Amino acid sequence: MLIAMKPQASEEDVRRVCAKIEAMGYRAHPMPGAQRTAIGITGNRGPLEPAEFEILPGVAEAIPVSKPYKLVSREVKNEDSVISVGPAGSGVAVGGPELAIIAGPCAIESREQAFAAAERVRRAGARLFRGGAFKPRTSPYSFRGLGKEGLEILAEVRREFGLLIVTETIDPENCDLVEEYADVLQVGARNMQNFSLLKRVGRSSKPVLLKRGMSATLEEFLMAAEYILSEGNYNVILCERGVRTFADHTRNTLDLSLIPAVKRLSHLPIIVDPSHGTGKRDKVTPLARAAIAVGADGLIVEVHPEPDRALSDGFQSLFPDEFDALMEQVAAIAGVLGRTTAKSFAIPR
Amino acid sequence: MLIAMKPQASEEDVRRVCAKIEAMGYRAHPMPGAQRTAIGITGNRGPLEPAEFEILPGVAEAIPVSKPYKLVSREVKNEDSVISVGPAGSGVAVGGPELAIIAGPCAIESREQAFAAAERVRRAGARLFRGGAFKPRTSPYSFRGLGKEGLEILAEVRREFGLLIVTETIDPENCDLVEEYADVLQVGARNMQNFSLLKRVGRSSKPVLLKRGMSATLEEFLMAAEYILSEGNYNVILCERGVRTFADHTRNTLDLSLIPAVKRLSHLPIIVDPSHGTGKRDKVTPLARAAIAVGADGLIVEVHPEPDRALSDGFQSLFPDEFDALMEQVAAIAGVLGRTTAKSFAIPR
Amino acid sequence: MLIAMKPQASEEDVRRVCAKIEAMGYRAHPMPGAQRTAIGITGNRGPLEPAEFEILPGVAEAIPVSKPYKLVSREVKNEDSVISVGPAGSGVAVGGPELAIIAGPCAIESREQAFAAAERVRRAGARLFRGGAFKPRTSPYSFRGLGKEGLEILAEVRREFGLLIVTETIDPENCDLVEEYADVLQVGARNMQNFSLLKRVGRSSKPVLLKRGMSATLEEFLMAAEYILSEGNYNVILCERGVRTFADHTRNTLDLSLIPAVKRLSHLPIIVDPSHGTGKRDKVTPLARAAIAVGADGLIVEVHPEPDRALSDGFQSLFPDEFDALMEQVAAIAGVLGRTTAKSFAIPR
Amino acid sequence: MLIAMKPQASEEDVRRVCAKIEAMGYRAHPMPGAQRTAIGITGNRGPLEPAEFEILPGVAEAIPVSKPYKLVSREVKNEDSVISVGPAGSGVAVGGPELAIIAGPCAIESREQAFAAAERVRRAGARLFRGGAFKPRTSPYSFRGLGKEGLEILAEVRREFGLLIVTETIDPENCDLVEEYADVLQVGARNMQNFSLLKRVGRSSKPVLLKRGMSATLEEFLMAAEYILSEGNYNVILCERGVRTFADHTRNTLDLSLIPAVKRLSHLPIIVDPSHGTGKRDKVTPLARAAIAVGADGLIVEVHPEPDRALSDGFQSLFPDEFDALMEQVAAIAGVLGRTTAKSFAIPR
Repeated sequence: MLIAMKPQASEEDVRRVCAKIEAMGYRAHPMPGAQRTAIGITGNRGPLEPAEFEILPGVAEAIPVSKPYKLVSREVKNEDSVISVGPAGSGVAVGGPELAIIAGPCAIESREQAFAAAERVRRAGARLFRGGAFKPRTSPYSFRGLGKEGLEILAEVRREFGLLIVTETIDPENCDLVEEYADVLQVGARNMQNFSLLKRVGRSSKPVLLKRGMSATLEEFLMAAEYILSEGNYNVILCERGVRTFADHTRNTLDLSLIPAVKRLSHLPIIVDPSHGTGKRDKVTPLARAAIAVGADGLIVEVHPEPDRALSDGFQSLFPDEFDALMEQVAAIAGVLGRTTAKSFAIPR
Repeated sequence: MLIAMKPQASEEDVRRVCAKIEAMGYRAHPMPGAQRTAIGITGNRGPLEPAEFEILPGVAEAIPVSKPYKLVSREVKNEDSVISVGPAGSGVAVGGPELAIIAGPCAIESREQAFAAAERVRRAGARLFRGGAFKPRTSPYSFRGLGKEGLEILAEVRREFGLLIVTETIDPENCDLVEEYADVLQVGARNMQNFSLLKRVGRSSKPVLLKRGMSATLEEFLMAAEYILSEGNYNVILCERGVRTFADHTRNTLDLSLIPAVKRLSHLPIIVDPSHGTGKRDKVTPLARAAIAVGADGLIVEVHPEPDRALSDGFQSLFPDEFDALMEQVAAIAGVLGRTTAKSFAIPR
Repeated sequence: MLIAMKPQASEEDVRRVCAKIEAMGYRAHPMPGAQRTAIGITGNRGPLEPAEFEILPGVAEAIPVSKPYKLVSREVKNEDSVISVGPAGSGVAVGGPELAIIAGPCAIESREQAFAAAERVRRAGARLFRGGAFKPRTSPYSFRGLGKEGLEILAEVRREFGLLIVTETIDPENCDLVEEYADVLQVGARNMQNFSLLKRVGRSSKPVLLKRGMSATLEEFLMAAEYILSEGNYNVILCERGVRTFADHTRNTLDLSLIPAVKRLSHLPIIVDPSHGTGKRDKVTPLARAAIAVGADGLIVEVHPEPDRALSDGFQSLFPDEFDALMEQVAAIAGVLGRTTAKSFAIPR
Repeated sequence: MLIAMKPQASEEDVRRVCAKIEAMGYRAHPMPGAQRTAIGITGNRGPLEPAEFEILPGVAEAIPVSKPYKLVSREVKNEDSVISVGPAGSGVAVGGPELAIIAGPCAIESREQAFAAAERVRRAGARLFRGGAFKPRTSPYSFRGLGKEGLEILAEVRREFGLLIVTETIDPENCDLVEEYADVLQVGARNMQNFSLLKRVGRSSKPVLLKRGMSATLEEFLMAAEYILSEGNYNVILCERGVRTFADHTRNTLDLSLIPAVKRLSHLPIIVDPSHGTGKRDKVTPLARAAIAVGADGLIVEVHPEPDRALSDGFQSLFPDEFDALMEQVAAIAGVLGRTTAKSFAIPR
């Protein structure tokens, strides 16, 4: 059920509706919009009676929601969500006209490696820095990240380069630590249906980057985001990163049709990961161009100062010079769609 | 690296090899076999030097292992592993001549429902009881199980019906509670690459039922099991439960060729879930027959006293009478393969 | 639209209904059943008016058909179809209690090879012989069969060993030649939607073995069969041969759940090809057992006297001794399901 | 084996090498390049001896070819192939700087419909017209095209609007008729491995548009093209049109990573079909932009004057106004990549 308030409804009206919902044992999700506020109701098992809400002052309509997801849906909030990342004055808006470009190495390996990557990606125009401190790896014997030491390095990167930090959290307990350092909490593809983790990041004050699972349908992807919103965190950035198919010329099959499909159903921003989405260095730039052309709100790209010596995913990481070229091409495509990229800017020392 | 001891090697010889491995900063996994003991080495990043071990007394050979998985591999342990579930005297052996039949409702809904299911599945010859107390659900608004109350009901089922309990654990913290009640810890398909959970159940004393992820390759599946073994828990039962494909006549595509493929590479037992593997009640019994015919070590089947009123997965749960028929047919097929099923036995009151 | 005649309707009544259908510009397909005759109508674009037929003598009911396929559907003919292959007295019935076992080499390479295979598969209990004279190959540079010479050898096999011949036809023109020699016309997976070929074999008097396409849904598979029936040839044997998925431990993923799914919707018999379905010799026998256990009406298996020297598909062809073992195991499973296999029989010289 | 001639080799040298190849019983494929001529050898089963050719005058090198495909490979011909369509003076080059835009209805339904579509797509900048006269359809009861009458209408479209004609041929016999009318012979996705048809179009003088099969790997796709080239027709245009996966938000999953993958391995041009690739009207334009951004050489798009009344594929056909918008956006993206589109041009009457 979704309660659409009248444009002229007062804050008091909204509070009253929420109080009634809570009194019924459900949960109220007020979502202020440009025109008017909508209030989502979750926690009810069966259908609710619209009339119970339509008699309250300020209520325009009580609408039964037809999709299994609610809070992520355009039925609940029609305007695009723009997610604020980082501190109020110096942050980045994801989902607005400027594309969100997240770049950096797969894993943080050392202070030197992180700084070398950070300097180059910042100079090329990225405003967000990626780098794993805790890495989910298929093998128990692979490098699984520097852990807390990696997070400390990421904090230094933020301080030194003015980049905002996107890094992965791998379980609810680990989230306590990661959210102290990260500007955006990343939930990886393998954890897209780790519901304990989804609920935990749903209670965080930090925005969440949610990657699509390897064989997730559009509906499952939106339901995973719904878990996060249903806990109260509305700042979710979706990410297409390729799905698993029979095709063997790339590591995954990047499903760019997902972007307009998400845009039609949901107000959440969505970016694309052409690095995992192809798994091959020489395919990253062409698919990055295509991602922006199809309408994505940004990119997350693996860049390593020395890909050949990377401890993970080196074969799909760009050389810094390649990333420079990618950014130029992406900026040109962005212009065609009426979007912008951040200008290369001097490092603030 | 795998150290094959000589048949006549003493326990002291084994201890000496393990001490050396630990002193090098790696982890030793001694695995006694019928003929001789093998010792797996994990934790090393690069290759090791065989000569360093072959000079020790009692060592027959130091073998570089060619697969990314080690402890689950037949290269390390050639004999089939037989997993003991439940108390020593009255337990069940999974992977031996008798098929392991696990049956019960998708979720525990009430004491009455659980008891009604338990009585019927036990009478039909199941010796293990399934039932979820914590349910991972695609929607945050779906029934997610009775939680601790469900576990208490499962404990009663064990007491009353002499059935061993298989139930799912959904995150590392939750595992502390679930392992107090369960005889087998189930890790669901969506959590097959939840590495924090794999490591946690790897430190449990309870056997683990590991379900294949929806789009997991054979190698990824074995690597997930390797995570558990690498933490010291060698009691892993694998489970094929269908994979995601384009085919739409079933909910998942049950991949029965996985069973001989696993048997060739690994010593671990593997069972089949024809309920999730098809998602349709009328397909469960034919595929259960096929699973036994292909060589699986057992089945996990959803049975509900009243499928039409089930809170989850009712459409794929068998009626108790259908399960009786399934068990008769499975017993006949088992006979052809030289395997047995448990006889229906009186409830011990 | 389907016209169900009354049980006591006369042949004259059936003729009258057909005449009316033809007069309206459509096509009538009378299908005599055990209880009564049904008449399918094809060729109409829009819906028909039931009353127009229900006024005719002998008509019980005119039923609008809800599926896109008609003639293959159990809505049109409820009893299982049993397809007669070969001459009336000495033929084989596919879809009856006796399993149809088709065996032989992938391609006919020489008279010696064919005879060696034929002697062994016949002795093991196969009554149908497979062998390609025209081979569709992925590469234009691969061996594409002996052509007409291969067909001549197949005719000798039939004469010498009393085996019925199943061989592939690859295009409409080629069908003119192949149907002179074959007892069953095989349409390969790559040609499942070669509609020109389907229509051509639909006009043949020989039964057709139709293999499922590599990524065909159940509905597309039944529609392909419908093409053949709609041209007047009702003798179609379906064949599941594995589909293409991400899974890489087998060449294809054998989808055994298709068998009960087809049985529910269609009256046509369906067999399984565990050779192409797995692509690996050591998986053929386990999956053959599973195929019979799930309810298939037979098998088509590649057997070569010297698999290591085969010009095609040697890696998935069984040695004759392996086929002997397969047949024993299959016979035992068949017994459990109340079905039989042909006894080994002396070669008629 | 590939024979690389020296830059200064004479035509006589080339003839001598070809004669030797033919004398050995193989087939020679001389391929003149900008720098020098290469000669592919096909028809050999085993490896050849380089020295046998390197002794001939004008031969620079005899190179064993490592891929299963040869003639389509960049190993044989490094420069991009540019395919000339239509008459020498007024034709179109596919694979050059100007994008090839093919547009028109799924099926030719009437002269009026074809003309209405042709006028609009031409005005918007398309220089090639698509429209099916022979339609492969999943159901035998669906509209299968106007046949020869449809071809006559297409010939009128060419005459009236100066558009070149792309239309499908469905079997070898049918090809005799279609090639009289078409400027480009289309081989549909379902026929990608109809080898009889591939060989037939390989003997045609008309260029061929080869669509990727629904579950074809990159290698299989190139091998299908190899069939055509190996018969002597080197004018093949590849087309990505989406593959079959579990994803259900589009009819097929458009695999844009195929474009750079093909470009790396093959000299043949490749275009994209966003209409079949998504199956949904509102996804066609975003994916068309992405296709050009990723590097495709053109598009094939379904446009219908009245999509809601189309006899086939109406739900994925663009309204003419939508196609105008698509062309504007595509032209802007093309500019970023240094490519052009044809200007809208007055109809020549």
